[in-house]
Amino acid sequence: MTAFANMTRSELKTQLDALRAEYFGYKAMGLKLNMARGKPEAAQFDLSTPMLTNISTAADCFSEDGTDCRNYGILDGLPEAKRLMAVMLDTDPENVFVYGNSSLLAMYDTLSRIMRFGVGDGKPWSSYKHGIKWICPVPGYDRHFAICEEFGIDMINVPLLEDGPDMDMIEALVASDATIKGMWCVPKYSNPSGVTYSDEVVRRLAAMSTAADDFRIFWDNAYSVHHLYGPERQDKLLDIEQACNEAGHPNRYYKFASTSKVTFSGAGIAAIATSPRNLADELAHLTLQTIGFDKINQLRHARFLKDAEGIAAHMAKHADILRPKFELVLQRLETGMEDVTEASWSKPNGGYFISFNAPKHTASRIVALAKEAGVVMTGAGATFPYGKDPRDSNIRIAPTMPPIDELDKALDVFICCVKIAYAEKLLGEHLDHKEETGFFA
Amino acid sequence: MTAFANMTRSELKTQLDALRAEYFGYKAMGLKLNMARGKPEAAQFDLSTPMLTNISTAADCFSEDGTDCRNYGILDGLPEAKRLMAVMLDTDPENVFVYGNSSLLAMYDTLSRIMRFGVGDGKPWSSYKHGIKWICPVPGYDRHFAICEEFGIDMINVPLLEDGPDMDMIEALVASDATIKGMWCVPKYSNPSGVTYSDEVVRRLAAMSTAADDFRIFWDNAYSVHHLYGPERQDKLLDIEQACNEAGHPNRYYKFASTSKVTFSGAGIAAIATSPRNLADELAHLTLQTIGFDKINQLRHARFLKDAEGIAAHMAKHADILRPKFELVLQRLETGMEDVTEASWSKPNGGYFISFNAPKHTASRIVALAKEAGVVMTGAGATFPYGKDPRDSNIRIAPTMPPIDELDKALDVFICCVKIAYAEKLLGEHLDHKEETGFFA
Repeated sequence: MTAFANMTRSELKTQLDALRAEYFGYKAMGLKLNMARGKPEAAQFDLSTPMLTNISTAADCFSEDGTDCRNYGILDGLPEAKRLMAVMLDTDPENVFVYGNSSLLAMYDTLSRIMRFGVGDGKPWSSYKHGIKWICPVPGYDRHFAICEEFGIDMINVPLLEDGPDMDMIEALVASDATIKGMWCVPKYSNPSGVTYSDEVVRRLAAMSTAADDFRIFWDNAYSVHHLYGPERQDKLLDIEQACNEAGHPNRYYKFASTSKVTFSGAGIAAIATSPRNLADELAHLTLQTIGFDKINQLRHARFLKDAEGIAAHMAKHADILRPKFELVLQRLETGMEDVTEASWSKPNGGYFISFNAPKHTASRIVALAKEAGVVMTGAGATFPYGKDPRDSNIRIAPTMPPIDELDKALDVFICCVKIAYAEKLLGEHLDHKEETGFFA
Repeated sequence: MTAFANMTRSELKTQLDALRAEYFGYKAMGLKLNMARGKPEAAQFDLSTPMLTNISTAADCFSEDGTDCRNYGILDGLPEAKRLMAVMLDTDPENVFVYGNSSLLAMYDTLSRIMRFGVGDGKPWSSYKHGIKWICPVPGYDRHFAICEEFGIDMINVPLLEDGPDMDMIEALVASDATIKGMWCVPKYSNPSGVTYSDEVVRRLAAMSTAADDFRIFWDNAYSVHHLYGPERQDKLLDIEQACNEAGHPNRYYKFASTSKVTFSGAGIAAIATSPRNLADELAHLTLQTIGFDKINQLRHARFLKDAEGIAAHMAKHADILRPKFELVLQRLETGMEDVTEASWSKPNGGYFISFNAPKHTASRIVALAKEAGVVMTGAGATFPYGKDPRDSNIRIAPTMPPIDELDKALDVFICCVKIAYAEKLLGEHLDHKEETGFFA
């Protein structure tokens, strides 16, 4: 086989004709496939369904400290739930704040509170006349960026490298601008790249000098226990809390985690871990916002997952379901992209995504083509602030939800679309609108 | 018996000595009783405990529209949960937004969003240079007032009369001041007075001219189905939605309710009902705040309570548990307050409280005395904005949580404290500090 880049114009045209024929074949199938969102599949939920019956009687509803979990009370979480979430958050139970059913809610609310009331000795972030800024490693998680946009926070792209975000760039930025107030991190099996920050990156984040005294790192450890392989091939992450304490910046971090991809998505429990001072700030406002979160669900989780060993054993079962899907994607890309020398992709040890870097300026076209053929991908650009990928290259592949045969079919389509877009690009035929090509018609 | 007010000074002193002896007897008992918060008692939760097992298998986890409730998705509530909450909110399911586990959260978040982003065509409420104002019928719910304080909203006291808030006063206020942006209402079996707004009051609230185009009523219908008696003695409330629509102010209201005192407190479900336009405003922001609320718990509730008949039958069982407690309080006050001619109290048909109006300037003293003897009451003044009851008179009695024998004992103490405070007042001995009296020592 000859790589597209080395073909003559005529050879390339022949290829494109064949690919288009293949494409119209897929279109004719009326497919409805989805590789867009990092949703678990039903078999994963079956693993946790026994949890639904472990709180069945009135006697079951009492926590270890004697609290009747059917009644009001306890804002920051049951002792056993704090202990459980401390495992996921690499911390001691007393630093944990069990927070509703969604870590996104915990992040949004925490940022919302700081915008309005400030944190530590700082003034409210919404009171800065010219606004504040936030560092966003890219590619990253679209919902993080959407929260910044909601609050009018200017986002600064920083490339996510193989060992974490570009620290030279970050250190230079935060040292000189006191309106840069924080940053998003998905430090382990990052969304979408699968990168885990190196110890050195974590230490530099903890130690760096920031012009803002109230600089905060939102450490979204969404995939802390979400390995795809056994212990011999798992990423290890240095704890940001420990690093911040050692560096003398004990209030710099908020760690977030949830069981959304451990038990049930949307019916799990989430938690924050942060310094006593930050925790006190959170609680002072949260006590006005709610009478407390669902303690029965906390109890259900604590009794079901139990401890670190319980979580690890449970997550190994998830991995058994997910690993074949990731392996299929990697295998298909390996063979399917032989001609597409400008493409690359991640090979993560955990998490929920494979990050695909298409040839420059083709991602939008690929996603549009796939959609037209019934395969929904995460929108091109979604992994960048404001939905703008300057290279129009990154596409997030989410292989977890479709059954494996559907995933295989979706990859047929996806690979075909990548090749079409790439061939078009090389031929200078790359056009944005169907009206111009007639191709979609 | 002679009323205290008609006694000679010497007679009164004799009474006070006897009361103090009684009081020290209670103190010696080392009581630990609580009539402070409107918490249900364990027997009430037992009524709903069967709900815990009605979602037990994977097949149980699918809603009527086929949604797997263990996965992400559906921001505004399952169809069956919307239908259920529509019963409690007097509305159609399409106007319902099922919102987490706490109506307080729904209210706080709604106000938070309007402060930051505005509502309808209005500008953000936090952008008013001299702040905004809010109407607070008094006595009222301390947590409502705390939310206003959190957001720096100036509160205006308006007396709650027998048929609802003083409408003449409200109409005059809102007509002339465009910075008065809204008001709290607990329109049925109000907290703490037990008052239900008359149809005329509801219609006037809906129809009144407001200088602010974005005036909003937060209609906290916390006790909509919480009757203490059978159908022959239940208050009926005109629906604010219907009244607002008829008056041409379709966006004026947000209705709130929850099952916190129907099923489990803190592990129930809450909901908002409002106009399509307000609902769209809420959803536009909520979609960034969370991936959705706990749908399994929504399903549990929908299957357990079913419909209006199911709710009514269930609430009748609650009433059977609560009615004897309310009757005991009323009976004990009736006999215990014979000498205290300046005291009055509510006789509600539903809700969670009896509102006690002590002789002017004695409430703080009564609550302090009771606390010292081991009986915790809601703090004096808590039913007023900023914790300041200008008459220092109102005390909220919450009879629901203690077992009936403990309630009886707590009422011994409470009645004794009222009489002491009243006798002291009549004798001019009313002093605020224990240091000054030595009485507590």
